Amino acid sequence: MDQSSPRNTSVTVADVAHKAGVSKATAARALGGYGTVSDRVREAVTAAARELDYRPNELARSMTTGRSGTIGVVVGDIENPFFSLAVRGITDVARQAGFTVILINSGEDFVAERAAIGTLLAKRVDGLIVSPAKENDVEHLHEAVRSGLPLALLDRGSDTLDVDTVIADDRHAAENITRRLIALGHSRIAYLTACDTPDHRFRTAKDIGTGSVRRRIEGFLGVCREAGMIGTEDWVHVGAITPEHTQRIVTEMLQSAQPPTAIIASDSIIGLEVFKVHRRLGLSIPDDLSLVSFHDADWTSVTTPPVTVVRQPVYDLGATAAKLLVERLNGEAQTPRKVVLKNEIVERASTREARF
Amino acid sequence: MDQSSPRNTSVTVADVAHKAGVSKATAARALGGYGTVSDRVREAVTAAARELDYRPNELARSMTTGRSGTIGVVVGDIENPFFSLAVRGITDVARQAGFTVILINSGEDFVAERAAIGTLLAKRVDGLIVSPAKENDVEHLHEAVRSGLPLALLDRGSDTLDVDTVIADDRHAAENITRRLIALGHSRIAYLTACDTPDHRFRTAKDIGTGSVRRRIEGFLGVCREAGMIGTEDWVHVGAITPEHTQRIVTEMLQSAQPPTAIIASDSIIGLEVFKVHRRLGLSIPDDLSLVSFHDADWTSVTTPPVTVVRQPVYDLGATAAKLLVERLNGEAQTPRKVVLKNEIVERASTREARF
Repeated sequence: MDQSSPRNTSVTVADVAHKAGVSKATAARALGGYGTVSDRVREAVTAAARELDYRPNELARSMTTGRSGTIGVVVGDIENPFFSLAVRGITDVARQAGFTVILINSGEDFVAERAAIGTLLAKRVDGLIVSPAKENDVEHLHEAVRSGLPLALLDRGSDTLDVDTVIADDRHAAENITRRLIALGHSRIAYLTACDTPDHRFRTAKDIGTGSVRRRIEGFLGVCREAGMIGTEDWVHVGAITPEHTQRIVTEMLQSAQPPTAIIASDSIIGLEVFKVHRRLGLSIPDDLSLVSFHDADWTSVTTPPVTVVRQPVYDLGATAAKLLVERLNGEAQTPRKVVLKNEIVERASTREARF
Repeated sequence: MDQSSPRNTSVTVADVAHKAGVSKATAARALGGYGTVSDRVREAVTAAARELDYRPNELARSMTTGRSGTIGVVVGDIENPFFSLAVRGITDVARQAGFTVILINSGEDFVAERAAIGTLLAKRVDGLIVSPAKENDVEHLHEAVRSGLPLALLDRGSDTLDVDTVIADDRHAAENITRRLIALGHSRIAYLTACDTPDHRFRTAKDIGTGSVRRRIEGFLGVCREAGMIGTEDWVHVGAITPEHTQRIVTEMLQSAQPPTAIIASDSIIGLEVFKVHRRLGLSIPDDLSLVSFHDADWTSVTTPPVTVVRQPVYDLGATAAKLLVERLNGEAQTPRKVVLKNEIVERASTREARF
């Protein structure tokens, strides 16, 4: 798939010295930032290094083994318990295999994610595990793969990246919970996600850059369509990116002339805000509103009523991604593998028959 | 498959400077986060850089500034919302100053922490922010300081390390909540922490390696002593290191002949397990048991009853540590600074008068 392009790891200090027309010792001083080097020489060496895409080899260990013993991980939001639990799965497996995990938070921001990948490449990690913020903006990941760095995708795949990928069956889980809500008589079901569109309105699932969420929305819309419901797209709300945004969206929704009788929260941070708002508005879950949240977050079992959730295999998503990456680093893997793990519905007490 | 798209690496500082209408030197200062730049100029340069998709060449940057543009952070447990929120504080300030944060989780394990510091040194980070797992085992941190790496301590100080330190007034907060519980008539007050001792028994606060927790326990014991209570040491329970451990400890405690009438949970993960166990045992908070938890975790306000907490200045702890470190990296700081931030008690409904 990715053609083996010339690796920049083969570029040595000697190559840089040769190109800059200086001795190896001088180039090493300039590159290492120690000793005395004139400005002119430093510039020549810097230019040569840049042109050759030289990357400093920083560790004695990496000189002898070719490895730094680190796995770089880029996740969307480490404050989301989904990701912190997945990172534990990654770390447990990586540590067992002798790797240290270094983590960068992208804040679900594509530009920050790209910078993070750049930093991790420069830090010479041995492999990468990434949850791409946007499945279709992955040129920086292609670049990493072209540079020869093993990559595993976590929770979100990409059609254009043929690499080890571990996701959950999000579409199926969304179909399941939507069917249950419809069976309970709900026809005004809102789906609420942090993913956003340029004008903060939802039109089609294609506009949702985060693959896991897009698959859930496709599942939700598909089941609603099957059930003969129309205009369901209007019930998908995007842009719940902070608790304040979520509170505003949920308050407006619940105070509108046609409030939803059920809400599906795309993550537990959103679910928590729905719970807070319904209390503030003096509503009752499940009497006035049914709630189902993705992610079996710790708080969902201690509220009154406890919340029905999609229990995602979060720890296993992380652990499996790390396992695939470690196998690849150890030369035990050939073709890229795609693993789909099962979600599970945990019925608690936050849903009931719709009241008309 | 991979189209070779035009690389934005051709965008230089000069291009950004031109677009922002400032000198190249000013643009470099704004982009590099060093020197003095007005907010207006910084915003103009940042906007121009974003528009042009400027990406700093890390190698060139580290050669001219001697910096890699990264801050290494080592925290105890990224799954603890305390730390993930503190990391957001760190990241917000660091990003603003042009630094990428790379994070390693120590799992509160001293050996893992030492390895993490080694990895970050090898990766040539520009500075470190660490929450030491053990305040007295910090030789690896002395080593980092001796190697010239700026270090800031987060949430936990060390008497032997004279470096920038940001902590909260944990002793004072513990004194406050203990006084309130005693005023409500409680005399059997248990304190529960994840910190452990070799034989899992508590004898003296000196055995607690985590400084923030040691200060809380000292505050708790001091107020109990003042109130004439004896044997309070027996009411301090250590080793609540996993939900399972916590459940076992709390169940035994509540089913003993002399159950506590109030529990102070040293973090919100422990507080949540206390909440779960009291429900499982058919007890009532606050009628049978009063509960106060450190950390105003998201779930504490949605339970029935909502939980009285010590609201720690978590985000500010992280943001302040990053601010001190960035100032030091920019040469704007001389002697090490010790900052103590205030905790706040948030009274909810999980405490009441003790029943006899």
